[in-house]
Amino acid sequence: MQELTGNILVAQSGGPTTVINASLAGVINEALNHECIEEIYGGLNGIEGILNENLIDLAAESQQTVRGLCYTPASALGTCRYKIKSDADYARFIDVCKAHNIRYFFYIGGNDSQDTANKIARFAENNDWEMRVVGIPKTIDNDLVLTDHCPGYGSVVKYLATTIRELALDHESMGNHDLVSIVEVMGRNAGWIAAGTTIAKRRNTFGDAPHIILLPEVAFNADYFIAQVEECLKNNKFCLVVASEGLADENGNYVAAASARDSFGHSQLGGVGEYLQNLVATRLAGVKARSCKLGHAQRAASHCSSATDVEEAFRCGQEAVKAAVAGESGVMVALVRGDADKYKAETTLVNLEDVANGVKHFPAEWINDDKVSISQQFNKYILPLLQGEVKVPFENGLPAYVRLQKNMVEKKLS
Amino acid sequence: MQELTGNILVAQSGGPTTVINASLAGVINEALNHECIEEIYGGLNGIEGILNENLIDLAAESQQTVRGLCYTPASALGTCRYKIKSDADYARFIDVCKAHNIRYFFYIGGNDSQDTANKIARFAENNDWEMRVVGIPKTIDNDLVLTDHCPGYGSVVKYLATTIRELALDHESMGNHDLVSIVEVMGRNAGWIAAGTTIAKRRNTFGDAPHIILLPEVAFNADYFIAQVEECLKNNKFCLVVASEGLADENGNYVAAASARDSFGHSQLGGVGEYLQNLVATRLAGVKARSCKLGHAQRAASHCSSATDVEEAFRCGQEAVKAAVAGESGVMVALVRGDADKYKAETTLVNLEDVANGVKHFPAEWINDDKVSISQQFNKYILPLLQGEVKVPFENGLPAYVRLQKNMVEKKLS
Repeated sequence: MQELTGNILVAQSGGPTTVINASLAGVINEALNHECIEEIYGGLNGIEGILNENLIDLAAESQQTVRGLCYTPASALGTCRYKIKSDADYARFIDVCKAHNIRYFFYIGGNDSQDTANKIARFAENNDWEMRVVGIPKTIDNDLVLTDHCPGYGSVVKYLATTIRELALDHESMGNHDLVSIVEVMGRNAGWIAAGTTIAKRRNTFGDAPHIILLPEVAFNADYFIAQVEECLKNNKFCLVVASEGLADENGNYVAAASARDSFGHSQLGGVGEYLQNLVATRLAGVKARSCKLGHAQRAASHCSSATDVEEAFRCGQEAVKAAVAGESGVMVALVRGDADKYKAETTLVNLEDVANGVKHFPAEWINDDKVSISQQFNKYILPLLQGEVKVPFENGLPAYVRLQKNMVEKKLS
Repeated sequence: MQELTGNILVAQSGGPTTVINASLAGVINEALNHECIEEIYGGLNGIEGILNENLIDLAAESQQTVRGLCYTPASALGTCRYKIKSDADYARFIDVCKAHNIRYFFYIGGNDSQDTANKIARFAENNDWEMRVVGIPKTIDNDLVLTDHCPGYGSVVKYLATTIRELALDHESMGNHDLVSIVEVMGRNAGWIAAGTTIAKRRNTFGDAPHIILLPEVAFNADYFIAQVEECLKNNKFCLVVASEGLADENGNYVAAASARDSFGHSQLGGVGEYLQNLVATRLAGVKARSCKLGHAQRAASHCSSATDVEEAFRCGQEAVKAAVAGESGVMVALVRGDADKYKAETTLVNLEDVANGVKHFPAEWINDDKVSISQQFNKYILPLLQGEVKVPFENGLPAYVRLQKNMVEKKLS
């Protein structure tokens, strides 16, 4: 493969994770090792910013800042949910790349982003612009196909399982009354996040929190749910329920949206947590119901990230650069689980096209017959992903996260 | 003062904090230093358990467990919200103390608990049972009078400010749309917790999150709130709002309870966060609204406790024992701020009677004229309370909190 000399462009897309910046740091770190790479540019706010030629000079950032990216949440480059709409957009994208001699493009994102990356790769090829495009996986939802797991997933589960273990101790210590505690977690279409919290159990018994896990993959039935709660309260002082925000009934309707109307008569946006809290309070006399909803805090909780997750995210960034320099394009870095007894994730490359349109649901065989608990087989899958704690530096009592200086690259197009 | 030989009894009451067990560890640790103290008993589930003679032998717990209490959330002894109802209850309490030769009673709790401790002290005195009663302060609400601050407060603020800083980075990185993000925090009557989150700001400007802080001390006005949000969105891509769960309108009605009815027509329990989220979504077209509600997770988040808070809580436990052995009774350990330039909290003793019926609201002079932000004077108060991080041991990727073995003391009463 012929050496391709020029500049690289890296961008981030979709909902942030606590480790999406570690992948960015991996790209920058590895890019410095290759003489064929001249400038290292970052695109602000994903595709949207790149179309506006909003590029920054990442080589100008201090080494301290690049190191700090490994423990800083959110998308340091900014993100977007913009979908490329037309060939004109693609043409504009290639014009920006030509103007800045971009020969390598790395897109850190979920399946929508990999789809975009795939189309960019093909458009460049059809328009005689030699550019290598490599995707880097990212999503707390863990729903990308062809990768064992996604960077971002281990950390969200570590944070949530930590929180649930703390909540369980709190609830257990609260006197002699029946308490039902609902924790609403992210995951609109796939139950990986909710299922992941099963690891908070100390023993794999029904008596250990979380007692009931409600996945979007399982149609919600209020009567069955209430019966399960009652069963749990027979033997436990409290019942801790984890519910996916995307919980839906047998007709596929989200349960939360339908729950209530506000004082103006508008249908409430209300979450699943408060819906279930009200359901319990209405149906079960004498039972206290509480809920919490960690919202976007769960995908930003870098103070409780998994060190394994950070390391893998960083490595995915590095491997993307290595692959592109070696001549690969139209591919995404994927994680492969090696020997099951001693966990070590290797990386491989998969075709962007194959990743772009798939969604990996939580496997049916890992859902127990009761439909509200998770098989122990899953524990073997999730446990290695949570290992190790990240040392976030604190200054004056609070985490000292970094921000990019963002030196803008001079615009060359109108 | 004559030496008083006998056993000690310690119990916990009210809502847990992340450091209530550190105070328990301080009591146990100090008790071992005094020959006049024979047995160290813990009362399970506060007064309620003691009335049922549910005592455990704390001296039988391993040193490892006692050390682990310093970073373990919730009330290790169990807690209660039981209010002593009658003289018969007091008489029963004294009977339990007599049966087990309890000469020292320590109650770790908020103002209700200090009230109970006060009444127990007087009842013992009037019934010729020599017993010294010392209260140990505890509440995330920080609303006890006569103490500079309360153990538990620094940690809840550290956790929330960390979370808000993470959320702010997340929101800032999210493309070009207007986002209003509501974080509902605890504090039904006093705004100390919500106000504390102001410390998450990096610079003390309106442009820095949290942008709007809604305290229960300030009557909520929807029109003014919406105007403030709009003002914020003129200059910022997002507006982060922290709201106390106890937010009330000018008539003193909680805003949340009135917000909606469920599909059965019942008034919803719904939180302030979802109420404000819906208010914003209804009033401001084109603005995205999100909310999160950390619920009981915020008072249990030991993985993000303040080391200063843990140390002070432990010391309050120690000082309570020292005071009682020295002959004090009917008092509570309080924290006093020494020299303002170099923070060091000293302890003192205050009368239980004076603590029992007071509530310390957030000082009006620390609320800025705009009513939704906090004066910089407050930063000097809060900052020292957040210093230092607790090293929680993690096992297999999750925090390894301890549980008491709970060896029951043989019952002697019917």
